[in-house]
Amino acid sequence: MKKLDGGITAVKGFSAAGLHSGIKPRGQLDLALIFSDIPSTAAGVFTRNRFQAAPLKVTQEHLARGNRLQAIVVTSGNANALTGKKGIKDAHLMALSTAQSLHIKKQLVGLASTGVIGEPLPMKRILSKIPKVTRLLSPKGGTNAARAMLTTDTTIKETAYRMKLKNKVITVGGAAKGSGMIHPQMATMLGFLSTDVRISHGTLKRALLQAVDSSFNAISVDGCTSTNDMVLCMANGKTSSAVIPSSGPLFQKFCFLLQKVCTELADKIVSDGEGATKFVEIKILGAPSLPAAKKVGTAVALSPLVKTALYGEDGNWGRIMAAVGSCGVRVSEEKVDLFFGNNQLIKQGKPNPRISESSITRYLKRKKIGLTLNLHGGKKEWLIRTCDLSFDYIKINASYRS
Amino acid sequence: MKKLDGGITAVKGFSAAGLHSGIKPRGQLDLALIFSDIPSTAAGVFTRNRFQAAPLKVTQEHLARGNRLQAIVVTSGNANALTGKKGIKDAHLMALSTAQSLHIKKQLVGLASTGVIGEPLPMKRILSKIPKVTRLLSPKGGTNAARAMLTTDTTIKETAYRMKLKNKVITVGGAAKGSGMIHPQMATMLGFLSTDVRISHGTLKRALLQAVDSSFNAISVDGCTSTNDMVLCMANGKTSSAVIPSSGPLFQKFCFLLQKVCTELADKIVSDGEGATKFVEIKILGAPSLPAAKKVGTAVALSPLVKTALYGEDGNWGRIMAAVGSCGVRVSEEKVDLFFGNNQLIKQGKPNPRISESSITRYLKRKKIGLTLNLHGGKKEWLIRTCDLSFDYIKINASYRS
Repeated sequence: MKKLDGGITAVKGFSAAGLHSGIKPRGQLDLALIFSDIPSTAAGVFTRNRFQAAPLKVTQEHLARGNRLQAIVVTSGNANALTGKKGIKDAHLMALSTAQSLHIKKQLVGLASTGVIGEPLPMKRILSKIPKVTRLLSPKGGTNAARAMLTTDTTIKETAYRMKLKNKVITVGGAAKGSGMIHPQMATMLGFLSTDVRISHGTLKRALLQAVDSSFNAISVDGCTSTNDMVLCMANGKTSSAVIPSSGPLFQKFCFLLQKVCTELADKIVSDGEGATKFVEIKILGAPSLPAAKKVGTAVALSPLVKTALYGEDGNWGRIMAAVGSCGVRVSEEKVDLFFGNNQLIKQGKPNPRISESSITRYLKRKKIGLTLNLHGGKKEWLIRTCDLSFDYIKINASYRS
Repeated sequence: MKKLDGGITAVKGFSAAGLHSGIKPRGQLDLALIFSDIPSTAAGVFTRNRFQAAPLKVTQEHLARGNRLQAIVVTSGNANALTGKKGIKDAHLMALSTAQSLHIKKQLVGLASTGVIGEPLPMKRILSKIPKVTRLLSPKGGTNAARAMLTTDTTIKETAYRMKLKNKVITVGGAAKGSGMIHPQMATMLGFLSTDVRISHGTLKRALLQAVDSSFNAISVDGCTSTNDMVLCMANGKTSSAVIPSSGPLFQKFCFLLQKVCTELADKIVSDGEGATKFVEIKILGAPSLPAAKKVGTAVALSPLVKTALYGEDGNWGRIMAAVGSCGVRVSEEKVDLFFGNNQLIKQGKPNPRISESSITRYLKRKKIGLTLNLHGGKKEWLIRTCDLSFDYIKINASYRS
């Protein structure tokens, strides 16, 4: 497996571009376009928030008409969410204008938006810039597109990998955005994936769900889920690449590659969590079931008391245990082991006398922290990634719109 | 109905005291004793956290042996939670020592602790001070006892009310502590209630559950639930007071009074929420069911994005709607009304053009904020009280143990 530059455009046949259309106030890029030179097999995963934003509704409508996409247009700074009928009309208009500019069918255009909720898109500005963003499309444009989808993010999130599959080579590229409002079930994040494999829609969808489940659906920044989240994957099936069957080792290898890209993007999102100073991996072992492992992991990852203690570099294990106990899963106190990195702080529910507080404090000074909880109540496990809760989270979110 | 001074000792026959035993570092009161001059009918509500602290286990054991209590001893600064067998032994010792000092049966002693989790109680210091706190018992000691149960709280929480019931007079007094880790299912809060009614255990328990449900179980500070929470009520049945039947108007009136005291204490907890600058009442109307109303209310009250926006005095209604949509309840976007105080910001899912952003900003400058969400999907309603999320929450919790 080889890591590549170029993100979403690391895959042959994909081009992209980003520009400033006038949604954001200070000239930042806010309109992105991703384009495949031929129609691609496409699959998507969408937020479970009851109030899905207009671009998600229209994209699902388009996908339902053949599960193929050739372009994705993304705006940042405005979510086009909770905008009623006008929002739907605006999304359709944006798709139509993009389709006309690219000389493709409207139903081949996917749409995504992220930013402030409840305000109408500045359609005049956006529509006037669509021909320009089309002209800017370039096989090296992935990074610009990745930049044009950011909101409170402080870093571009893109990656790409290539691997051999039999005597063929397959590539998966991706770009994502997300920083606040991140939570399992995807929250305010967008993810776009490109690949050159030849694959049926059903198989692609299954692979995508599997990859999303252990990546974008296993991160949490603040427990908030949003109206706009989606992950879209386009597979252009270039003949030089492999055909992916619906099961077996080739399918598994493709899943592995897709998951690798998604996990790396998800980790970049958590590392860029609003105000985050720590990247925290919480591993739950010995759970009686997978849902139980997820409940326990989520309870710990979400606890503001745990998150502020980590920010304060305080090994306050009582808060971790209280979170475990609060989530409704039947856990036996006297069985629980807790590790900070390799340091076993709690052994069978009790402080381990061989580990000093100072060694934990030293460990917590790291930027990347690993917590392992073994419940010794079964064989299921789950990994969730999160970040700490700092002053800057408050600062960013108390004044987001001003 | 008349408001009284004196909190828990406003009820005749109850005395209390508080002193510094040496758990807290800087001479603050940390040992409280509440005493009834005769054995009282008692009922309790206990945390649903899977890891109940030792004092809760011992108190429940004592209650099970006759549902009567005559004394409650409380320590603050150390929770005696996740302390294993030693913790249970310490709790028994504390009860025994208190019983001996008061010349009552051990099973008449209730126990509560709050503070750091996972550290053994400094038993030597505590046991040496129990005779002294017994000597200090006074019918005017309610406030000192209320002070001695505080941790990160910045204010004493006590209240008492008296009302006429037929030709009798009944009184309910109470003291509570709680500031961080507050959430429905009671979190790190303690509540103690005294009353002079004559009542059976079963009736008292029902009245208490009802009162707790709409007060302590309808507040949220940070969504964390703890190992130590409990509410205990003692009814001494002084002959001058009324007999409360198991149903009917007299029972309802007693419930009303108990609820009044609990609600006032719960409000004091939220107002003193860690770092809180706003007291926020969220009213959910038009829900299809009570659980649905609770889910929606809790989702809004818990959302860090909503809480930080309120701290920033930003009427970011999109975040409120996103929280509503995220909680799994079937709500129709185009039916939702949202009010900030009397200002209807959202009408049938859309911004109300007759309300200006500036009037909302002005409203949000208040210390007490009311949000009303009408889902127009049924007839059930619920009220939850919470606070905003500020820099000081982080400050307090990043350095709690240092």
